[in-house]
Amino acid sequence: MEYHLDDPIAALATVRGRSAIAVIRTSGFGCINVIAGIFSRPRALVNSEGYRVHHGWLLRNGSEKVDEVLLTVFRGPLSYTGEDSVEISCHGGPVLSDVIMNLLRSIGFRDAAPGEFSFRAFSNGKMDLTQAEAVQEIIESRTDRGRALALSRLGGSLRSLISEILDGLKRQAAIASLALDYPEDESEQVDFDLNEIRLCRERLERLVGTWSTGRLYQEGIRVALAGPVNAGKSSLFNLFLREERSIVTEEPGTTRDWVEAWLNHDGIPILLVDTAGLRVDAADAIEVEGIRRTRELIASSDLVLALADGAAGNSALVEFERMNLAVENGRLIRVWNKVDLIPDVPSGWIGVSARTGAGFSDLLTEISARAPGGAPEGDAPIINSARQRTLLLRAIDALDNFRVDSGIPIDLLAEDLHEALDALGEMVGMVGRADILNLVFSNFCVGK
Amino acid sequence: MEYHLDDPIAALATVRGRSAIAVIRTSGFGCINVIAGIFSRPRALVNSEGYRVHHGWLLRNGSEKVDEVLLTVFRGPLSYTGEDSVEISCHGGPVLSDVIMNLLRSIGFRDAAPGEFSFRAFSNGKMDLTQAEAVQEIIESRTDRGRALALSRLGGSLRSLISEILDGLKRQAAIASLALDYPEDESEQVDFDLNEIRLCRERLERLVGTWSTGRLYQEGIRVALAGPVNAGKSSLFNLFLREERSIVTEEPGTTRDWVEAWLNHDGIPILLVDTAGLRVDAADAIEVEGIRRTRELIASSDLVLALADGAAGNSALVEFERMNLAVENGRLIRVWNKVDLIPDVPSGWIGVSARTGAGFSDLLTEISARAPGGAPEGDAPIINSARQRTLLLRAIDALDNFRVDSGIPIDLLAEDLHEALDALGEMVGMVGRADILNLVFSNFCVGK
Repeated sequence: MEYHLDDPIAALATVRGRSAIAVIRTSGFGCINVIAGIFSRPRALVNSEGYRVHHGWLLRNGSEKVDEVLLTVFRGPLSYTGEDSVEISCHGGPVLSDVIMNLLRSIGFRDAAPGEFSFRAFSNGKMDLTQAEAVQEIIESRTDRGRALALSRLGGSLRSLISEILDGLKRQAAIASLALDYPEDESEQVDFDLNEIRLCRERLERLVGTWSTGRLYQEGIRVALAGPVNAGKSSLFNLFLREERSIVTEEPGTTRDWVEAWLNHDGIPILLVDTAGLRVDAADAIEVEGIRRTRELIASSDLVLALADGAAGNSALVEFERMNLAVENGRLIRVWNKVDLIPDVPSGWIGVSARTGAGFSDLLTEISARAPGGAPEGDAPIINSARQRTLLLRAIDALDNFRVDSGIPIDLLAEDLHEALDALGEMVGMVGRADILNLVFSNFCVGK
Repeated sequence: MEYHLDDPIAALATVRGRSAIAVIRTSGFGCINVIAGIFSRPRALVNSEGYRVHHGWLLRNGSEKVDEVLLTVFRGPLSYTGEDSVEISCHGGPVLSDVIMNLLRSIGFRDAAPGEFSFRAFSNGKMDLTQAEAVQEIIESRTDRGRALALSRLGGSLRSLISEILDGLKRQAAIASLALDYPEDESEQVDFDLNEIRLCRERLERLVGTWSTGRLYQEGIRVALAGPVNAGKSSLFNLFLREERSIVTEEPGTTRDWVEAWLNHDGIPILLVDTAGLRVDAADAIEVEGIRRTRELIASSDLVLALADGAAGNSALVEFERMNLAVENGRLIRVWNKVDLIPDVPSGWIGVSARTGAGFSDLLTEISARAPGGAPEGDAPIINSARQRTLLLRAIDALDNFRVDSGIPIDLLAEDLHEALDALGEMVGMVGRADILNLVFSNFCVGK
């Protein structure tokens, strides 16, 4: 995928389908004038300031009305992309969006590639890479908490933190550069601020540590509900749906083979999967296949709620053992159902009553406690992107190699700093070396 | 469903799902100031002129950022609804739209009922009922042609026509009113313009006649592809998909029981249904059920393409007859497939080759000719709403009752005119009687 830089692009920015309105976004050099050529009030558009809305009709072949629309004009650099841009708010419906996109193609617009508007925003300095990533994360968030964490990144919390760390490391890299440029001074000890480097490393460590939390709130966890027939899996599933507000997503809640639903527990998206009844003695081929799928679901879940029929007494334990779930203890939560009938709960089990709701809050607490990654601490930024994590780890590695007291030559030490700077620069989308030179020239007047 | 008139309402106006942006529409008394209370730049909003866009953040609990948004301010009456209105352009994604809708509810907005924005536009005189209906028809249009017909109604073509007819009838009703108000003149013949009434009636007739065309282009037709196994149904189905540009809709193209696709043939939406192989000797229960469904599909289709395996020669005819499709000739199109192998086509059949495409354009011509309702004539407005058709027929009935020469008393004749006026008034959403009084008082100075 190759992006160009300012040719006129267009894309439907809302979901295609039947709705009151749809929005088609355009951006690029000359786009305001080009769209004026298909608008019933061309001069209003051409002469428009930015952040102005114009009512009129889109026209085809000079006079044929295509739709009654509102056009919003943005003048670069005060736009999302930083370029001139026109947003077309038209009537909804798939046919109309197609017709208008065809009209735009006929006057020179190209279909925007995925993310191309944000790429241009990044290219034009409107946002760094962590912010561009946050845009997509907001859109894909599954709970309000996930949205808030992504929004904080969009607001620049992560950008600021990385930028502070970069500043600290750049100061040290500048010191190394100076020492290399004036080798006559090399006999002296180069005056690195080791405390600053340690501080940077600590902040990077903390940030890497937020990854599991970021993923937890963005992607959520899969929790499988397993157990023998009659243990009450469906009742417990319904209790979850009643008690924890369900996240209604566009994904269908029911598949042919199992039932699943997204829940929102304290901001953690939980995909609860009710497996088919897990039977030891498979009656026929279809059931064997069902059991195979159930085992797959269990294997791919983050947590497994293994349900026993408490009313069956000790034989429940026997049946449970016979099922041989083969789930590591770290993922297994043993749930003893029907405590409303039989209140005795064996040790190591959480007693619940799917019928009365008794014990349900204990179960939720246990799920939260077992979820990989904990709650975010205060307002500190959190990462959830594997790309960012890899780059942070690379920067940390580089700083681990930086050991002044071990007699390593300065040029190698400088390399370590540059490696860390490159990694962090890549994280926010900067090219590493160039702006270090800038810092050198602006802070130190070497030229004289 | 009861609508209120200007309390603040809000609704997601785009399709809920993952997309770059989503738009939430609000309207009603005070909505600009209320939203200013949750916006990072409240004064910009409160002081904003209409048709202005403001960039900022939506805030919850005074300071917590909910999203980075663009707000467009409209000041009544220059808005869609005619009221003050704010459109919120936010990031896409279902969670975010939910969060913002909740935020709006918390500050006093009510969820808009379906059509409530258009209802307000109608109430505030921004559009008549035919235009309000056209809005929904544009959204639901299936081809560019269907969109264009609805757009013409939105532009007011139907409204103007009805309004001209109303004016003509109102003039005659005013004449009747005058005669009734001055009974001393009743001995004289009341001076109705019978030519005007005949003209109005003719225009109503023509308009009613467009109904089948309107429905054809808006709703399209269902065409079933039927025939014995091996006649080449799937090949012909694929030929349609290749040759006629498919309308990709959000409806799934494949169901468990049959395959279907929307095609666009000269602006007519065609839902082509490939039935399961229709066999006479059903092998087992499942196949019997399949045949039952196939017969249902055939019964509910506008046209049936009955395909015979031309390569099988005369035995194809025999097999075809044995199938006993029992479709009236008006809906049946007999298609003789595989003319590339056997060029002889029995009389009454259209010869095609699904493999080479031979004869395909003849088949298309036949489908167009058989479709109920023809092409629209020129730019004359077209109706496609059953409500409008019923009201037009009521108006025509009333005018049929209006016979001056048959000695019917004037008050009964006046009733006929009022009945026609009421029906047409209801069509565009006007109350009938009041504005006739207006016409009487303004054109005739009776008071003196």
